[in-house]
Amino acid sequence: MTSPDTLARLEATIAERRSADPQSSYVAKLNARGLGKIAQKLGEEATETVIAALTEGREALVGEAADLIFHLVVLLSAKGVPLSEVMAELDRREGVSGIAEKASRPKV
Amino acid sequence: MTSPDTLARLEATIAERRSADPQSSYVAKLNARGLGKIAQKLGEEATETVIAALTEGREALVGEAADLIFHLVVLLSAKGVPLSEVMAELDRREGVSGIAEKASRPKV
Amino acid sequence: MTSPDTLARLEATIAERRSADPQSSYVAKLNARGLGKIAQKLGEEATETVIAALTEGREALVGEAADLIFHLVVLLSAKGVPLSEVMAELDRREGVSGIAEKASRPKV
Amino acid sequence: MTSPDTLARLEATIAERRSADPQSSYVAKLNARGLGKIAQKLGEEATETVIAALTEGREALVGEAADLIFHLVVLLSAKGVPLSEVMAELDRREGVSGIAEKASRPKV
Repeated sequence: MTSPDTLARLEATIAERRSADPQSSYVAKLNARGLGKIAQKLGEEATETVIAALTEGREALVGEAADLIFHLVVLLSAKGVPLSEVMAELDRREGVSGIAEKASRPKV
Repeated sequence: MTSPDTLARLEATIAERRSADPQSSYVAKLNARGLGKIAQKLGEEATETVIAALTEGREALVGEAADLIFHLVVLLSAKGVPLSEVMAELDRREGVSGIAEKASRPKV
Repeated sequence: MTSPDTLARLEATIAERRSADPQSSYVAKLNARGLGKIAQKLGEEATETVIAALTEGREALVGEAADLIFHLVVLLSAKGVPLSEVMAELDRREGVSGIAEKASRPKV
Repeated sequence: MTSPDTLARLEATIAERRSADPQSSYVAKLNARGLGKIAQKLGEEATETVIAALTEGREALVGEAADLIFHLVVLLSAKGVPLSEVMAELDRREGVSGIAEKASRPKV
């Protein structure tokens, strides 16, 4: 199973910390530095995920993927976009087309 | 709420399609082209997410974030890493330190 | 030697083609699609350079590095920044600090 | 003009510093940390160039483009690829096709 509550809790934590003291909260600090900085971190974590997948072990990949998701939620939060909208978009694609697939068989 | 089942279903769909016909399945096609190609797509979607967040509207950001998550799950699947391990890592960080925070107050 | 005229010629070619017919010129087409698209291509080529360096052969790396430089010049051109300003910045860093080095010895 | 000697000098400086003391040289330190780290830095600088082009001023873009070129030369150096090979590839494309253009007119 995929820990259904993890992302909801992560999103709530990040929302709460956006208004914390930038000196004690990484999320508050990122937000204080602005959207460009948050976007930059997302890009960095994606690069690190790519490198981990291609050259490092399973543990490194798990860590980088967690970093990537974390910073994606920070970015969405900074833009006021609930994660549920992204999930709804993924659901919609699955429903419509089987995720960019030429699905000719019944929905999975 | 954050659609708890979306990622589990997405992961199952992607796992199933990895062995489909590359001519009819995007997931199968990506896997046939190899891990480098999958990693490249992840990097591209991250760049597009960055650009959408900085210069485009909410709808574009939702779409790019969905693409990013989709390709991250494809990458994890290709490496045999269950999404639950990534979620467990996010849970672990939250439990230990409040997500890389210098948390001095009780756990949220 | 490093083909000193290559970049000057590349920059001139790109400047000339920006106003060409988007149907016959890749540079014109990119510019017609806007700065976001050009920036996206730069990000993609960087990811491909990373992947080539880590997992592919010398020839692939040369090709991806050429793509990266090409799209960087397209981006600078679209922003009206001459490549000479970037070179001057590299010269300045070398002169001041030996390129971000704690240089304690005479300038190389 | 585009400072034809800048890249040749940069490449020579970087080659020289690869074997310097990692404690006093950034280039030596990057090389000591390995190719993955160098590639990661390249990816980061590309993201920062994208962000500067889309949201910051001319000066920031010049600085990020310089960082990107610097780290590209570090990466090529670490892989033993002379910059001249990349320039030759750019020349070759210009000669053959006018850089991925459907060139129907005489070479520029």
